[in-house]
Amino acid sequence: MSESLPAPDGILATVTEPGDLKRLSPEQLTLLAAEIRDFLVAKVSRTGGHLGPNLGVVETTLALHRVFDSPRDRILFDTGHQAYVHKIVTGRQDGFDLLRRRGGLTGYPSRAESEHDFIENSHASTALSYADGMSKAFALRGEDRHVVAVVGDGALTGGMCWEALNNIAAAKNRLVIVVNDNGRSYAPTIGGLADHLSTLRLNPGYEKVLDLVKDALGSTPVVGKPVYEVLHAVKRGIKDAVSPQPMFEDLGIKYLGPVDGHDVQAMESALRRAKGFDAPVIVHAVTRKGYGYRPAEQDEADCLHSPSSFDVETGKSLAASKLKWTSVFADELVKIADDRPDVVGITAAMAEPTGIAALAKKYPERSYDVGIAEQHAVTSAAGLAMGGLHPVVAVYATFLNRAFDQVLLDVAMHELPVTFVLDRAGITGPDGPSHYGIWDMSVFGVVPGMRIAAPRDEATLREELREALAVDDGPTLVRFPTGAVPAALPALRRVGQVDLLREDERKDVLLVAVGSFAGLGLEVAERLAEQGFGVTVADPRWVRPVPIELTGLAAQHRLVVTLEDGMRAGGVGDAVASALRDAGVEVPLRDFGVPAGFHPHGTRAEILTELGLTAQDVARGVTEWVAKLDAQPANAEIRR
Amino acid sequence: MSESLPAPDGILATVTEPGDLKRLSPEQLTLLAAEIRDFLVAKVSRTGGHLGPNLGVVETTLALHRVFDSPRDRILFDTGHQAYVHKIVTGRQDGFDLLRRRGGLTGYPSRAESEHDFIENSHASTALSYADGMSKAFALRGEDRHVVAVVGDGALTGGMCWEALNNIAAAKNRLVIVVNDNGRSYAPTIGGLADHLSTLRLNPGYEKVLDLVKDALGSTPVVGKPVYEVLHAVKRGIKDAVSPQPMFEDLGIKYLGPVDGHDVQAMESALRRAKGFDAPVIVHAVTRKGYGYRPAEQDEADCLHSPSSFDVETGKSLAASKLKWTSVFADELVKIADDRPDVVGITAAMAEPTGIAALAKKYPERSYDVGIAEQHAVTSAAGLAMGGLHPVVAVYATFLNRAFDQVLLDVAMHELPVTFVLDRAGITGPDGPSHYGIWDMSVFGVVPGMRIAAPRDEATLREELREALAVDDGPTLVRFPTGAVPAALPALRRVGQVDLLREDERKDVLLVAVGSFAGLGLEVAERLAEQGFGVTVADPRWVRPVPIELTGLAAQHRLVVTLEDGMRAGGVGDAVASALRDAGVEVPLRDFGVPAGFHPHGTRAEILTELGLTAQDVARGVTEWVAKLDAQPANAEIRR
Repeated sequence: MSESLPAPDGILATVTEPGDLKRLSPEQLTLLAAEIRDFLVAKVSRTGGHLGPNLGVVETTLALHRVFDSPRDRILFDTGHQAYVHKIVTGRQDGFDLLRRRGGLTGYPSRAESEHDFIENSHASTALSYADGMSKAFALRGEDRHVVAVVGDGALTGGMCWEALNNIAAAKNRLVIVVNDNGRSYAPTIGGLADHLSTLRLNPGYEKVLDLVKDALGSTPVVGKPVYEVLHAVKRGIKDAVSPQPMFEDLGIKYLGPVDGHDVQAMESALRRAKGFDAPVIVHAVTRKGYGYRPAEQDEADCLHSPSSFDVETGKSLAASKLKWTSVFADELVKIADDRPDVVGITAAMAEPTGIAALAKKYPERSYDVGIAEQHAVTSAAGLAMGGLHPVVAVYATFLNRAFDQVLLDVAMHELPVTFVLDRAGITGPDGPSHYGIWDMSVFGVVPGMRIAAPRDEATLREELREALAVDDGPTLVRFPTGAVPAALPALRRVGQVDLLREDERKDVLLVAVGSFAGLGLEVAERLAEQGFGVTVADPRWVRPVPIELTGLAAQHRLVVTLEDGMRAGGVGDAVASALRDAGVEVPLRDFGVPAGFHPHGTRAEILTELGLTAQDVARGVTEWVAKLDAQPANAEIRR
Repeated sequence: MSESLPAPDGILATVTEPGDLKRLSPEQLTLLAAEIRDFLVAKVSRTGGHLGPNLGVVETTLALHRVFDSPRDRILFDTGHQAYVHKIVTGRQDGFDLLRRRGGLTGYPSRAESEHDFIENSHASTALSYADGMSKAFALRGEDRHVVAVVGDGALTGGMCWEALNNIAAAKNRLVIVVNDNGRSYAPTIGGLADHLSTLRLNPGYEKVLDLVKDALGSTPVVGKPVYEVLHAVKRGIKDAVSPQPMFEDLGIKYLGPVDGHDVQAMESALRRAKGFDAPVIVHAVTRKGYGYRPAEQDEADCLHSPSSFDVETGKSLAASKLKWTSVFADELVKIADDRPDVVGITAAMAEPTGIAALAKKYPERSYDVGIAEQHAVTSAAGLAMGGLHPVVAVYATFLNRAFDQVLLDVAMHELPVTFVLDRAGITGPDGPSHYGIWDMSVFGVVPGMRIAAPRDEATLREELREALAVDDGPTLVRFPTGAVPAALPALRRVGQVDLLREDERKDVLLVAVGSFAGLGLEVAERLAEQGFGVTVADPRWVRPVPIELTGLAAQHRLVVTLEDGMRAGGVGDAVASALRDAGVEVPLRDFGVPAGFHPHGTRAEILTELGLTAQDVARGVTEWVAKLDAQPANAEIRR
């Protein structure tokens, strides 16, 4: 048989839409899976991107597209970062050279890219809810379509999945849920659910397969086709089996599994059975994150979850190693914890990316990984604080939005000392709109009693984190961007809690530069100075509440300009303007920040340029505004 | 025996702290339970309040306080509205005459009231997360305390509970969870979980008891002591039993039950066993909402969940029946649905209070109750919209905060036509800070593409709801307050989308009055006019995005004043100020709204008065500000 098969890469090149998969033989599918893995490793090693998750869903994705008829049937990926293989088989292979680059392929499903894509939000645990809505709509409208949702075991720790399962069970509509169970989210999945899944996983048949897989892989250096032929041979014949009493059945959802998620035919068989039910059904696919690429499989921390560019042979990063904001936070947190036994850390399944891992390593009993469960992270922090501790909840800025109500009522209303540390605040880059951390200063600025700090460099991050942990009567939030910390930006002097970074003799413009925009603020000031303005650059350090010193400074100037790496609406600019009004300081103000919108992906620098957040654009904006102001007549009396 | 017992009311009078309960005999406890029910019905019939839930937890609460040692041990009530009995036995009987009145007892636990209270947030499904945090803190600090959380079966449909159970199971700390299973939240609990609980509930022993209870009650008009003696006799001897394979055990949490939650001794026995485990355990208590008070038991809609003042004999409301905002919405929604088969409704366990019940009655297949699961409500609405429908998600304003991220990314980023209808927006009243709907315009105003309408009377609610449902490229939000709609406030004319309600010849002040504050705005205008100002009163109707006509109007005036029934921070005032800056309209502005803070309970009028949101205070604020403005020198040129 094998001599009649196309040459390697030949099969992949023939797949330009899902229908092409349906013509392939089992052997060709096995080869195709191997080609896809080579393709993924080759492409992602150059662009960076989500590698581990996609290596784990190759066969599952092939099986899904053979059994279902996309886009008529809807295949939904929870946390869209596992949709690369789906992109490859839906005509987007050519896009991978510009993966996550400006104007190139997005890192998640995108309706603009393909009629096969639906959900663009890559926050975890949402897909089952979308699926419930879609299946209800199709039922109501009498449309004969299937809805399939692929969700990781990690995402199942999120409460939304529970809410959705409860409703899916009640609705009884046809709906297939593929649980992609690799025992991990970023880190190993934790909790009672994980234990339950692993019980189900302990099906003797499956264990045997896994051992064989392990042995086979043990003799192969990196990804290679022969492995798959071996695997295919050993796995064939292993059938999925209905495990006794899985908890999903207690909810009234049928359960098929566990199925070997790296066996296309076993997956196909299970999916066909699932498709045949006229009711909700779970297919429990057991997979391995990073499967088939040795460096990913051997990466204990996160299976090369989302590396930047790397060496294909070793999996080692090619990115320059500079001191990161995250590392500074992690280092300072451990130092504080050395002195303060009341300080504990909480992470939502992201101990490594948020830096909590450093605390967990030194003080494992003082660090909690709650799973992908931001709501519980926040309210259990409230409970810890009520128990006399000072918790530090470390998440990406975009994810704290998922627990707004808990921050507002459970923490702030109770005046509890919980410190939120938001990594990747502001415009982040290649992950695109669902991952921009641009909402926090607006949304959490509304929370009464919340204090928000935006450090500008290494020293201020260390200092403001300590200040946050010294607050004992309410919540604090410290936010910083992704990437490397800039060179030190020392203050000339401190006025109250405000740092002055530049002070000209003439007081024309007070430029309030927030956090990571301090450097930008200094550049803007330089340009304005060249045009004859006297500029003061102030870093308020704590932006909520607005420092009282800022209104005093504003009153000494003729104009106020604010500059922030966050949404304009409800942001620091609005807050400063409000504080000035309340103080009766009628100095004109202009606020520069991220305009309303869901901005596409690219590098941080590219996006800031497109948004007009460069020194040149801001300086021009200020001078144009001044020209208009000077042309206006002075105010007459209001009441005649 | 019985002649030696104190007279009715005598036992209740002797209970001033939980320790007093421990001295009582089984017979005395039975009498006490009856006295407490009489007390609750008598008091709440006058003040209004949460009746049904509290009638259901009398025996459970007594048992809890006999087995555990509050406040050393921590008894936490999820949705604090079931804590009245707890208040009664912790020394607060005298406060019930002023229940939920300004300065009187709060309707939820309150740390200011008692050392026995901890959680003041009464949004559902949070208590298990607090409990997890507390038990972790006690374990870490080596404190020998117990943590008990009481959670309803309805609240278990919320995702936070799932997140918490998953973590509680993993932590393995001692923690007792009492599931107060009455088969209802406001409405009957729905979903796969509810079915599972009812399977557990179908323990033959328990069914028999329930029948006997039913028979006994069938012959008794309203609440009365003899019933309890009968009940006590039949129930004694029924023991809790471990049901086979409840799903909680799949998660690794021990399960005791089902227990008859109206049998103090059975509950005590189960709780003592639970206390003895050094691990998390669920006690499944089966209760009846409204138990022991016939009108509550017979109220199919919500078991007199939270009536206003009522007649004790009949349970019928004594409140004057005026046309409510909710009824107008419900009526108009059904009318629209008559013409539009794509319009569907979603409620989060509150079909009656939000008005969705009217749609559900006429079009049951087009109405979805998702349980207490706001996140799923929003994202399943996104799925429905992707399936070609236009969902209307109707919730109280305070509860949409729980789904901010879902509104932002799942709906708005996908530009889906979902209409959010927020009832009880603004300052509501007796429910206090956790239920004020003052955050929505700030928080959802940040969402790109979100359009927010705030109707001012019946006609504008009908009109703006229709406008919202005509939008097909993104989310809309319509918000209105609690209570009766005011008399019609017709517009003099409409400028673009802005209604002018008053127009003086002189253009001194543009007063932007938002939604329910339109009437207040007209009163303020009257007072300003008396002092010589010419005032225009504008209702923008749609407050986000800020109507362009508003900046044009502002430019014709010397001052702008905004007036809103929501947070000042990030509110309409801030947004209008921002729009004016962007349009280069340098007219001074003052914004009046709810100041930052968690404001205590009272009537809406009392709270607005305290916050300075009366015609008198606002008018004075404006005139004082004008005096200051007139005293300031005019601006000189900015750049010399």
